[in-house]
Amino acid sequence: MRLRNKPWAKDTLLAHPEMVIQNPEEWKGRWKERFGNDHPIHIEIGSGKGQFVSEMAKKNPEINYIGIEIQTSVIVVALEKALAAEVPNLQLLHIDGGTVTDYFADGEVDRIYLNFSDPWPKKRHAKRRLTHADFLKAYEQVLPLEGEIHFKTDNRGLFEYSLASFSQFGMILKQVWLDLHQVEFEGNVMTEYEEKFSAKGHPIYRVEAIFPKERHPYEVK
Amino acid sequence: MRLRNKPWAKDTLLAHPEMVIQNPEEWKGRWKERFGNDHPIHIEIGSGKGQFVSEMAKKNPEINYIGIEIQTSVIVVALEKALAAEVPNLQLLHIDGGTVTDYFADGEVDRIYLNFSDPWPKKRHAKRRLTHADFLKAYEQVLPLEGEIHFKTDNRGLFEYSLASFSQFGMILKQVWLDLHQVEFEGNVMTEYEEKFSAKGHPIYRVEAIFPKERHPYEVK
Repeated sequence: MRLRNKPWAKDTLLAHPEMVIQNPEEWKGRWKERFGNDHPIHIEIGSGKGQFVSEMAKKNPEINYIGIEIQTSVIVVALEKALAAEVPNLQLLHIDGGTVTDYFADGEVDRIYLNFSDPWPKKRHAKRRLTHADFLKAYEQVLPLEGEIHFKTDNRGLFEYSLASFSQFGMILKQVWLDLHQVEFEGNVMTEYEEKFSAKGHPIYRVEAIFPKERHPYEVK
Repeated sequence: MRLRNKPWAKDTLLAHPEMVIQNPEEWKGRWKERFGNDHPIHIEIGSGKGQFVSEMAKKNPEINYIGIEIQTSVIVVALEKALAAEVPNLQLLHIDGGTVTDYFADGEVDRIYLNFSDPWPKKRHAKRRLTHADFLKAYEQVLPLEGEIHFKTDNRGLFEYSLASFSQFGMILKQVWLDLHQVEFEGNVMTEYEEKFSAKGHPIYRVEAIFPKERHPYEVK
């Protein structure tokens, strides 16, 4: 996502340590303490402008949400939405989504959402896609046994890649949607991208994938 | 596929035992003998009017093809195309695709094609879908270790179902296409359905899925 530079953004983030966590590595293994309850923790990696994670937090008060976004000029928009939501079960993390194991203990995260992640369409950039095996390894570590990734995108190439990547990593596809907005899907919360691209008639792809207790990766020759 | 009844169809099929195999169960374990060589055997289950299997046979003389179709009024059209193709590496089987284990020995089939199979959209008919676990079990038996299914359809619901079914059965998705005609796919041979529906702008879905040496099914709760 490209937004114009916002020189004031860093200061705004620093002014809200109650929402954008400072020194997040100190909270590793202690997130339930931070939220003050033992509700499940769902994180969104690459939460962009934050509409999804803010709305989910409003809708599901019994779940704690953490939105993760590396881009300063984007997370500052998410911060505004998060503050406006006025909910106690939402936090933002201004870190790189690829380093979740630095900030969460093993099994500390109950579910991971990936929404409209950067497609990195060039083959030589495949390792940067958030559904590449290297990232899946990190996600698996912070999730419990049989933890799930819920992934939405309008990008055909990224979705094709991700289904094969999940499968070859040894994950199980629980359910797949190839045109989410054509079917009844109770409680779908749209991201900013999703509103924009589905309005243009793009199909929205979605998958729920599980890390099974015993994982058997498969290398395709 | 609905076609008008063709009372003469049965006689036409019987008149061509060199192409439409009579007493096919007698050839179980002996298909290489029937073709007179030891080339790989690829079967298409539900070959309909036979365009795919006839063209594949023409294009790939080093592979033996068997088109399987239960509907008399449809396979008789496939017969005409098969005769017109004038190739030695093509045979038709007038049987139910669900009973492949009755006609092929273990590991005797090198690849299975499923093209535009009946979607059976009602949930209570899921067991009739050719990608249901019960069918996968039979396919696995007649394929070698690491055998593959190559499946194409324009039916979104069937494709969604099939990806999850393959995965939960313990198969591995080798590659997925969500709009086959938007990309370079060398050597794609279109079925009659594919020509019709892609001309209407429907995306054509395709997947190559592998039965791994060690298969680990997963039951989704």
